[in-house]
Amino acid sequence: MNLLITKANVLRADYSTEIADIAVKDDVIAAVGDIPEDFAADYIIDGRDHFAVPGMVNAHTHASMTLLRSYADDMKLMDWLNDKIWPVEAKMTEKDIRIGAQLALVEMVRTGTTAYADMYGPYLESVAEATISAGLRGILCRGPIGFMPGVEKILAANIDLFKNYHGSGDGLISILLGVHAPGTCPPDFCRKAAKASVEHGMNVHIHMSETQGEIRQIQEQYGKRPFKYIEDTGLFVRPAIAAHCVWLNDEDIAVMKAHGVTPVHNPGSNLKLASGISPVPRLLAEGIQPALGTDGASSNNNLDMLEEVRLAALIHKGNELDPLAVPAREALKMGTEYGAKALWLDRVGKIEAGWKADIVLYDMRRPEWCPRHDLVSLLVYSASSSSVDTVLCNGRVLMEKGELKTLDEEKIMYEANKCAMELINR
Amino acid sequence: MNLLITKANVLRADYSTEIADIAVKDDVIAAVGDIPEDFAADYIIDGRDHFAVPGMVNAHTHASMTLLRSYADDMKLMDWLNDKIWPVEAKMTEKDIRIGAQLALVEMVRTGTTAYADMYGPYLESVAEATISAGLRGILCRGPIGFMPGVEKILAANIDLFKNYHGSGDGLISILLGVHAPGTCPPDFCRKAAKASVEHGMNVHIHMSETQGEIRQIQEQYGKRPFKYIEDTGLFVRPAIAAHCVWLNDEDIAVMKAHGVTPVHNPGSNLKLASGISPVPRLLAEGIQPALGTDGASSNNNLDMLEEVRLAALIHKGNELDPLAVPAREALKMGTEYGAKALWLDRVGKIEAGWKADIVLYDMRRPEWCPRHDLVSLLVYSASSSSVDTVLCNGRVLMEKGELKTLDEEKIMYEANKCAMELINR
Repeated sequence: MNLLITKANVLRADYSTEIADIAVKDDVIAAVGDIPEDFAADYIIDGRDHFAVPGMVNAHTHASMTLLRSYADDMKLMDWLNDKIWPVEAKMTEKDIRIGAQLALVEMVRTGTTAYADMYGPYLESVAEATISAGLRGILCRGPIGFMPGVEKILAANIDLFKNYHGSGDGLISILLGVHAPGTCPPDFCRKAAKASVEHGMNVHIHMSETQGEIRQIQEQYGKRPFKYIEDTGLFVRPAIAAHCVWLNDEDIAVMKAHGVTPVHNPGSNLKLASGISPVPRLLAEGIQPALGTDGASSNNNLDMLEEVRLAALIHKGNELDPLAVPAREALKMGTEYGAKALWLDRVGKIEAGWKADIVLYDMRRPEWCPRHDLVSLLVYSASSSSVDTVLCNGRVLMEKGELKTLDEEKIMYEANKCAMELINR
Repeated sequence: MNLLITKANVLRADYSTEIADIAVKDDVIAAVGDIPEDFAADYIIDGRDHFAVPGMVNAHTHASMTLLRSYADDMKLMDWLNDKIWPVEAKMTEKDIRIGAQLALVEMVRTGTTAYADMYGPYLESVAEATISAGLRGILCRGPIGFMPGVEKILAANIDLFKNYHGSGDGLISILLGVHAPGTCPPDFCRKAAKASVEHGMNVHIHMSETQGEIRQIQEQYGKRPFKYIEDTGLFVRPAIAAHCVWLNDEDIAVMKAHGVTPVHNPGSNLKLASGISPVPRLLAEGIQPALGTDGASSNNNLDMLEEVRLAALIHKGNELDPLAVPAREALKMGTEYGAKALWLDRVGKIEAGWKADIVLYDMRRPEWCPRHDLVSLLVYSASSSSVDTVLCNGRVLMEKGELKTLDEEKIMYEANKCAMELINR
């Protein structure tokens, strides 16, 4: 199918903007600007007064936790986990996981996210199917807590998931090997997971160095910091993404660089849970390109990546008293192309001929887009994701003029609210 | 006129929520919940699936600077002021000031703000008239820079504005005496302004302790910190609001408490300009109730108060590593009732019989409001101001179901973009 977006303001790969047409052939951008004369469009989208930007990549979330949005807030981390989150999660059924993920998918499309990395489970097969059906890219893994009895079964299930779903949905789905965190996974489990990752050629998704408490705990238990601990178990032999990375020193950054571990910055969650502020300007100065994530909706409390882009652009300026820390353009790259690279997505994250057609059109006919001195500044510092008007992923139209094309929003919201209330009263 | 909002989820004054009707008689809330049988509604608004919350109070902004939104970002503060903002501001005409303010009014209504404190000028008469016509509460003052030649004229104009507009628009407008900042106003000017404030019974609006550089400068020039310096000029004899208050010590807080000076926290602007992070949890612990503001749209870059509420709830948790710092409810109070109190607005900021009918209805039929475990958490941590559906100020409907009733949005946006482009090329 040939799709043409006409006269949009396009964010080019070099971060200049220009009014141009975008030709999409099947899943790929065929041309930007000079459209070949023999390109016959089957479908035309009017891009006037819209800003065409690569789809957002949410590189760390727990989609099904959307059912717990607003269930428990303004609490201490361990009270929140022990008294609220973990007891309820233990009661989640396949239906809860599926409906929670569908609610997340609705919110992601509405806010311009076209790819997401999910760590959750069980029943991730349902999440994979829901993601394929919705048309987003899902980079999924389980999140085994190594000291829990029966954890080997979860590891085995994660490997089965890889065998059954990696590359499925016409390449929309990839499966990673999940390991929850250094503080919840003892060395023997980490070594087993590391061995499996190498044996099956699976890349790794792990929480790392989220809190000061975690650093202290691992140092007390193993006499080293979390990055060294995980490196020593072999879990960084395969490429990995590491969510949070709030508390880092020179040695940690050296481990990250030696193994090409990509940090995923979660500013909203790190602030809300009082974990701290990741040294993102330092990472950028080291040549590391952090991705961005929302974390779960129970600690954020939404899946709005534009908010994370804005937070990434704002909080480091204030924290380091440097108005040039993380400029708008760098923050937007973290939310798009750096995220795509972090998740090993091939030719995703730029609007460029030959790249995948993951494109979001923001409607600029709103006061917060006026006047239009600088579109990237307007997007990052002023607009909200409620401007997201039309979303393409892999060339498929997921939303057009605010109408979802692949998800039954009203039904999903009704069921999600019902599931959530039943779940917390179970 | 009798107006009835039916079956809304109402945020009560004690911060409980319940489904209730709200009866509005002229400018005042007549009843919440049990509506008197003889209340005959002239107009009914369906409040089902909407969250009724007091209108936001933006306690520090520069409305007309909305014309400079996205004109200059990611710059050092003095480069930004000297090379970009001040040269352009010097060229602003009456039309620029008026159209800039109208664009701000459109954005404020759309994002649920019903009262704002503006420091700007010249031509504030036009801003007052535009505000009365739009139906918001405007608490206006000039921003004289004391060392500029002819500054006495600006002080005199501010006093004239007070005589001509204080209490106008059926009480919507009040006029304060503006003094720009300690660093830009020498003692003789501050003393003149202080004398005028007492003579005319005018309350004061000033920027205070925004940057470390300001603290250093004032200490070098006068051998004391900004709060002591301004206190000694007599400018705190009358009640005052002090924007920013980022860098405070015990002595500063003692001055604030001694004179009832209310700080206005501007988290977005303070982060973006890399001013720092105000010690808001400390202020709250001292029994001070800070208001919230957006600052101007050239340093924010929008006038979205819900974003400031969210930032106030998030950044202090991360900064102080305390998940209980500034809970959602406290942040929302800062954006509503504390702001109204700070601006000396009588019976504004609560949905309660006898209080002014400044009410915003948020449409909750959206994924970010699902599931509905806790409405205040959903508003503060998940929703965006794009949920604002209906806005009342002083009993008048300014927006209903997304349609502006008092402002010609399309025309204003067209003119604002034209004015802005002409201005920067002048």
